[in-house]
Amino acid sequence: MTITVIGVGLIGGSMAIGLKELGIAKKVIGVGKTTASLEKALQLKIIDEALALDEAVMQADIVYIAIPVDATVDIAIRVLDMISDKQIVVDAGSNKFTLCDAIKDHPRRKQFVASHPMWGTEFSGPEAAVSGAFSGRACVVCEKNKSSETALNTVEKLYKDLGMHIIYMSAENHDIHAAYISHISHITSFALANTVLEKEKEEDAIFEMAGGGFESTVRLAKSSPAMWAPIFMQNKENVLDVLNEHISQLRKFKASLEKENMDYLVELIENANKIKRILK
Amino acid sequence: MTITVIGVGLIGGSMAIGLKELGIAKKVIGVGKTTASLEKALQLKIIDEALALDEAVMQADIVYIAIPVDATVDIAIRVLDMISDKQIVVDAGSNKFTLCDAIKDHPRRKQFVASHPMWGTEFSGPEAAVSGAFSGRACVVCEKNKSSETALNTVEKLYKDLGMHIIYMSAENHDIHAAYISHISHITSFALANTVLEKEKEEDAIFEMAGGGFESTVRLAKSSPAMWAPIFMQNKENVLDVLNEHISQLRKFKASLEKENMDYLVELIENANKIKRILK
Repeated sequence: MTITVIGVGLIGGSMAIGLKELGIAKKVIGVGKTTASLEKALQLKIIDEALALDEAVMQADIVYIAIPVDATVDIAIRVLDMISDKQIVVDAGSNKFTLCDAIKDHPRRKQFVASHPMWGTEFSGPEAAVSGAFSGRACVVCEKNKSSETALNTVEKLYKDLGMHIIYMSAENHDIHAAYISHISHITSFALANTVLEKEKEEDAIFEMAGGGFESTVRLAKSSPAMWAPIFMQNKENVLDVLNEHISQLRKFKASLEKENMDYLVELIENANKIKRILK
Repeated sequence: MTITVIGVGLIGGSMAIGLKELGIAKKVIGVGKTTASLEKALQLKIIDEALALDEAVMQADIVYIAIPVDATVDIAIRVLDMISDKQIVVDAGSNKFTLCDAIKDHPRRKQFVASHPMWGTEFSGPEAAVSGAFSGRACVVCEKNKSSETALNTVEKLYKDLGMHIIYMSAENHDIHAAYISHISHITSFALANTVLEKEKEEDAIFEMAGGGFESTVRLAKSSPAMWAPIFMQNKENVLDVLNEHISQLRKFKASLEKENMDYLVELIENANKIKRILK
């Protein structure tokens, strides 16, 4: 089949690579905002051809949208407006409620699958796309009853062939969970980087001393503003809820230190250790 | 030579394993707070023998102290009180100022090397000790001028043989840097775990959805309270400085979302991206 990937970066690019390797995509057409990224994607053989949106959609069996969430809504509607009744559209956005709400009454809604493959790295652009990206991870599919059986089966098969397992959720619940397990991790990491950059002037010392702990908590701070700023803004209500709770949890640590309350400090850490239940 | 390791956990145990593998330690004697951990260390062949403190110190060429920082001060003084002029004492604690200050006038101070090998994991106890732990990492040595040349050379050679490189710092500077590159990472990670555990009741969903981002920022939240609570408390002034700055950085993200100020949000993230300069 022919897959048109709108957005040839980390997710779209890795999807293209995976589907070509599996022989599922005979041809991958790329649509991008800049000619630079399209040229890079062509050069890296991630896509076979770069076309303008209309033409690229026309030729596609499946249209895979993997662009920042604020752009996804408009593009999804434009693509749905264009397609025939044989084509399928999927998105990979990190928020699902705004999008699902925007397209809920579209006459082609059944040909759309709202998905969120739970994989990513702190890198972006076609150069960040890798083989084997999604294997072993979960893919969330939202509002599955609003997609036709054909669309759902076709899209789920793609993800499963890439080694993912499917979990179902309402768009609202997805966005709440995503705020907890992904969005807040990125905000704390950005804020931690800003803390260090603000106060710590001896960067050589940090560089020398930085062990695994620093590296792992600050790694996400390298992530792209073009991708993450729209995610936080669009999922504002949930993100603010989590952020307020997180600040209040940090204040408990602050209070325990200010009051030199060792028992309380130990209690806070022991409680945090319960995360072992959740993390593998 | 005979090495006595006081504290047979993650650091002391990994040190024992490394020095035995290199053939530097012909015999490793373990001193521990609980018989359970000593038995475990014997069973895992991390130590050759478990002895009481006095006897273990008497037999040692080098005494390696790797216990929680609040216990280190007393033990270091007790060990220094005991040793002959041929023996060397080292500690591996995550804070250096309180300790260096406490022993600064000890008659045996020159036989002591205050060090902090920059390696660790979120695990603890003898079972957490691994081979090859310190390779490629930095080891901070503080107040080097207060150690004799013999003590310094002997200890530095151990670390270098384990693949570490030495960096020198005053104890005060070490503790400031450590607050930035290690202590705050642990606090944010503990607080993030508490945030999720407090608000997110659908743990199955988190477990399913948790991708690499969550895992890496929350990994440190598994760390031991026995080790970390004393570190934070002893380095309270520096930790509170960093923690206050971190909370104020998080509030900037909060403000950008509340005011729907996309430009400001992008600016905050772009600034955080500058951490690429520091992280490899």
